[in-house]
Amino acid sequence: MSNTTKVLPLLEPEVPETVVPCCPPLTERPFTAEEAETAARMFKALGDPVRLRLFSAVASHEGGEACVCDISDVGVSQPTVSHHLKKLKDAGLLTSERRGTWVYYRVEPSVLAAMGKLLTVAPSAA
Amino acid sequence: MSNTTKVLPLLEPEVPETVVPCCPPLTERPFTAEEAETAARMFKALGDPVRLRLFSAVASHEGGEACVCDISDVGVSQPTVSHHLKKLKDAGLLTSERRGTWVYYRVEPSVLAAMGKLLTVAPSAA
Repeated sequence: MSNTTKVLPLLEPEVPETVVPCCPPLTERPFTAEEAETAARMFKALGDPVRLRLFSAVASHEGGEACVCDISDVGVSQPTVSHHLKKLKDAGLLTSERRGTWVYYRVEPSVLAAMGKLLTVAPSAA
Repeated sequence: MSNTTKVLPLLEPEVPETVVPCCPPLTERPFTAEEAETAARMFKALGDPVRLRLFSAVASHEGGEACVCDISDVGVSQPTVSHHLKKLKDAGLLTSERRGTWVYYRVEPSVLAAMGKLLTVAPSAA
């Protein structure tokens, strides 16, 4: 047996460029054009029924992450699933990490929380 | 002066057909196709920067409602503003009521709260 041990590099999850939180609650003050661009990108990503099903399949999966093999049960082809998962990643809603054969997708709780915060009702507007 | 008093009929806000809350938190379990259709419609309505600015302008306006005259400052034409407000109404995010010359738009806090709930992190997924 060799004395040299090989340390496998830890795979860092890819961090999307679109960083949330971006914006105050929608009820706090009118959004600026820039805030609206960022937040609209996230809402648009969830504005498709197939993407929303994939997103909730990942979000509700054990441990908050899922392999493509776990979540392809939405009645569309595998390339379509991959296409939609890429859109969710581009919007900053999912991160992915390859482990062996499979790519695992994960919902960042902070992203969900930030989007939820957008939709809170500010005290002044209640 | 006449003794007969004219009672103006109260205008009921139009209630959209798309009723929320529709769905459990996205992290609770995979959405069904039907749930995804309903929720995606709401997210899609917010997935456009101009609509999002109009929506936040209404949501953050004094008293939670605004006249078109209050919120047209988003750099698009009046017909475009009307078009986007109609889309927000169709998605069940705004209600409207005509009072005199103007149509007033209002965000239903229950709709905002329901959308916010979709994005809460379920304890099992945290």
